[in-house]
Amino acid sequence: MIHFRDEMRINPFLISFCRKTSAGYNLTSLFVGSEGTLGIITKATLRLYGVPEATVAAVCAFPSVQAAVDSTVQILQCGIPIARIEFLDDVMINACNKYNDLGYPVLPTLFLEFHGSENGVNEQVQQAAEITQLNGGSDFTWATDQEQRNKLWTARHNAWYAALALRPGCRGYSTDVCVPISKLPQIIVETKEDLITSRLTGPIAGHVGDGNFHCIMVLDLNDKEEVRKVKEFTDRLARRALAMNGTCTGEHGIGIGKRKLLQEEIGEVGIEAMKQIKTIFDPKNIMNPGKVV
Amino acid sequence: MIHFRDEMRINPFLISFCRKTSAGYNLTSLFVGSEGTLGIITKATLRLYGVPEATVAAVCAFPSVQAAVDSTVQILQCGIPIARIEFLDDVMINACNKYNDLGYPVLPTLFLEFHGSENGVNEQVQQAAEITQLNGGSDFTWATDQEQRNKLWTARHNAWYAALALRPGCRGYSTDVCVPISKLPQIIVETKEDLITSRLTGPIAGHVGDGNFHCIMVLDLNDKEEVRKVKEFTDRLARRALAMNGTCTGEHGIGIGKRKLLQEEIGEVGIEAMKQIKTIFDPKNIMNPGKVV
Repeated sequence: MIHFRDEMRINPFLISFCRKTSAGYNLTSLFVGSEGTLGIITKATLRLYGVPEATVAAVCAFPSVQAAVDSTVQILQCGIPIARIEFLDDVMINACNKYNDLGYPVLPTLFLEFHGSENGVNEQVQQAAEITQLNGGSDFTWATDQEQRNKLWTARHNAWYAALALRPGCRGYSTDVCVPISKLPQIIVETKEDLITSRLTGPIAGHVGDGNFHCIMVLDLNDKEEVRKVKEFTDRLARRALAMNGTCTGEHGIGIGKRKLLQEEIGEVGIEAMKQIKTIFDPKNIMNPGKVV
Repeated sequence: MIHFRDEMRINPFLISFCRKTSAGYNLTSLFVGSEGTLGIITKATLRLYGVPEATVAAVCAFPSVQAAVDSTVQILQCGIPIARIEFLDDVMINACNKYNDLGYPVLPTLFLEFHGSENGVNEQVQQAAEITQLNGGSDFTWATDQEQRNKLWTARHNAWYAALALRPGCRGYSTDVCVPISKLPQIIVETKEDLITSRLTGPIAGHVGDGNFHCIMVLDLNDKEEVRKVKEFTDRLARRALAMNGTCTGEHGIGIGKRKLLQEEIGEVGIEAMKQIKTIFDPKNIMNPGKVV
């Protein structure tokens, strides 16, 4: 159920309950991700997935970013139905080791999770382990029961707080570019060089199966010079992604801060179309005004 | 790459190459399924899936529509990653037997396909067979090599032509409602009763895992009375689906024939929003005019 305002009335309309529909323009997808600028979603029906029969978590360290991402691509290309595959760079692993008192090798690392039947996950783990080893990855550290799995994934789950703990008293800001997965090693390597050159703290955590990664920028908001440098860095990163046919935001959205980048990404024509769409649903500009467009 | 006309100019704009993006409103989903009424898609990048290591096809007959659909729901709820699950009703099976010289039992029937590793598909087939047998289904007829699989699926692949062959010289028209899968047995049973009462020929083939099914109406276009009855039947069917929170079209679209039903489905407010969206992208109404809205 979606509501939007037209003059003084509230106009509700219902989107399909079906698994598929071709009834006119896809207004559901238009509203999803519109950051509250078009109307209010007051009711949603969610599709549920069952708890898998078996789950295995695994961790694997690599000699290089390229080796970790190549493994990811090959795992996906082999059709292994991996449930989660997350990347942490050496700086992030180092931060997690300190924060959680862990002893992971300070190397680019993949955290993996496999879902399926007992036999199915064993087969997946075996295939994935073969692929990672061919790319120079370490032996899998792995776990099946929930407690052990949670422990194994602690580093990933606490990544944000581990990054902030690198510089007590500082604040965090997460970048969010996404690129075609083939470009992922190049952009991560270039971005790490940029961080070093710029003398900025930005450990990297990535949803590597999607080509999406975050630099968790840790900065002192009272240091105007540093704030300026972080702003310049994040703009350079976004433009690096755009030059690779990527996007300035994989999942966090545009908000206020990325309106200029959105313009660069989709051009004047796209922006104009979005502005007019906004006007249809919110002619008085009262729905989260000033955001996105 | 999407092009749309604004006054005399052609305005191209590029949609993301990424697996995910949150950059502004989702214009890709707005254009997909818009039936050419908003602009022209001139370039598309497709995501490819690998050929699975193993494939098994299977056929299973049931004592009732309810038993076939219950099996489908239970297979999905068990998380069996079934690749295809298609339903043919007894009338459709009878038509296929005649057309292809086959000997399937004249009963509601599921055609299934499983993809995965060798072990994985065996496990899937075993689990699915247990479920279908608990619902009174026949033993699986199944095949692994491509030639045998194609032979097994012949009935489904030729369903349209088998339906037309029921009445030589007549034409076909396919209905396309989709409902929440829990409502599927009820709507199929009611629709079959309606077909019998109305004395119309409309064998049923359904993408049963989606809640979407087609009555392939076979009618004599020169018989005005029959054409009228088919029109009335298809409107009744669509309204039956709408009353169950369904849609008048799961995949075929609105075109000209379902504009009235679209209005009933999404209401005046939704139609008005769609009309205004159309105006943004096609102010001169030259893109497939008269369709959808």
